[in-house]
Amino acid sequence: MNQDISPAALRQAIRTGEFTGNTSGYSPGFVQCNLAILPADWANDFLRFCQANPKPCPLVATSNAPGDVGLPLLGDIDIRTDVPSYRVFRDGQLSEEVPDISDYWRDDLVIFALGCSFSFEEALLADGLNVRNVSEGVNVPMYRTDISCAPAGPFSGEMVVSMRPFKAADAIRAIQICTRFPSVHGAPIHMGDPGLIGIDNLELPDYGDAVHIAEDELPVFWACGVTPQVALEKARPPFAITHSPGHMLVTDLRNSQLAVM
Amino acid sequence: MNQDISPAALRQAIRTGEFTGNTSGYSPGFVQCNLAILPADWANDFLRFCQANPKPCPLVATSNAPGDVGLPLLGDIDIRTDVPSYRVFRDGQLSEEVPDISDYWRDDLVIFALGCSFSFEEALLADGLNVRNVSEGVNVPMYRTDISCAPAGPFSGEMVVSMRPFKAADAIRAIQICTRFPSVHGAPIHMGDPGLIGIDNLELPDYGDAVHIAEDELPVFWACGVTPQVALEKARPPFAITHSPGHMLVTDLRNSQLAVM
Repeated sequence: MNQDISPAALRQAIRTGEFTGNTSGYSPGFVQCNLAILPADWANDFLRFCQANPKPCPLVATSNAPGDVGLPLLGDIDIRTDVPSYRVFRDGQLSEEVPDISDYWRDDLVIFALGCSFSFEEALLADGLNVRNVSEGVNVPMYRTDISCAPAGPFSGEMVVSMRPFKAADAIRAIQICTRFPSVHGAPIHMGDPGLIGIDNLELPDYGDAVHIAEDELPVFWACGVTPQVALEKARPPFAITHSPGHMLVTDLRNSQLAVM
Repeated sequence: MNQDISPAALRQAIRTGEFTGNTSGYSPGFVQCNLAILPADWANDFLRFCQANPKPCPLVATSNAPGDVGLPLLGDIDIRTDVPSYRVFRDGQLSEEVPDISDYWRDDLVIFALGCSFSFEEALLADGLNVRNVSEGVNVPMYRTDISCAPAGPFSGEMVVSMRPFKAADAIRAIQICTRFPSVHGAPIHMGDPGLIGIDNLELPDYGDAVHIAEDELPVFWACGVTPQVALEKARPPFAITHSPGHMLVTDLRNSQLAVM
């Protein structure tokens, strides 16, 4: 399928089962979101967790009421069918990976759409920066840190970060660019010595793939959307649904519309 | 004299000879400027040098015409009397340090007022950051680098930088804050390894005083207003006047008015 497809047409292809893959690179210019779906009696605490930890858990939209399957601010969406692959969790354990959650839907489910690094990577690339995981064609390296998130009810845990190496001048430029996009993780949270945030070895990421770091580059660390997934698994809600990694909710919102200035 | 004095009252005290000291800390909230005064036949190249190197040479204002002694955008100023101490250069050599340049004034002189780090330091302090040279009560350490400025006519040379150490998260915040203030050197130009910009030893600054850098801090480097002074001395104009270090032109412009957003 041609990657330069409108978000609505891509979601239609996902809905009919024609498209089942990774959404990276599709519908360039449009916001892709991480997805979390929780029962209403867990939703309020998760919402508070997101609000207390906006850098790893930047909330782009929620459903208007429990049971609603749409996210009208993000497009004509039926969340049960419009994501290419879903993960169903029971008591914090992954139980199924499915292309459609119509059979799993319940009247008490609340939808959370969270910002994703694809949006700020696009802004970095548009500025001419070398985003290493993109230029090397691999998944961004992600690491568990010793930075505690602010807890909310059953949700807690350490922040997960993604890392992109840059020369200092480019790191400064990346900070400026990402500052404009608080709803997709915003400015980095650390740079330089990884040991200061509890990372032992950059060559051994906890998620994703290692990338090359040159002698004259600084590793730059962003809060990562894996953080709420880890908090979710740790809280062990009886039932939860997320997207499968890389299989995102593609929205009608333009990345540029997320810029605060 | 009480430091919390209006810029107009401070300039009046300077004009009458009542105040002759360092202006650091006086008229908080108001822009203080570096000063360069050149004959008209050198002024155009210096203006081009500033425009080509806006980070070390951020131009806040120039006089409207050769011979003018005022800078109406910056207040009711007579540049011949309103700076506490001046340096007079002949053929690039310092010849006199004087409290008044009325006797040196010529009809062909052009005034350049350049932004100074006092303005962004105030913004960093207001955000709660520890600006080391301020907390240690010393002059900021400054270093010659191997970064070449873009030349313009006779003006050229390497960039001089000032250094302030920060923990990474504070360095990121400092970059965000200083980005708002391009006319007072703007965002840093480097951070981390000083060797990458030709600095051998942070403990031996070329100007100012060394400051303590903790293990978990990054040195962060800003383009510095000493750069145009070095370029000026190197270009050896037959006649030039600058302020004496720390003895700045205090203007009616508020630091917040320099913020681009």
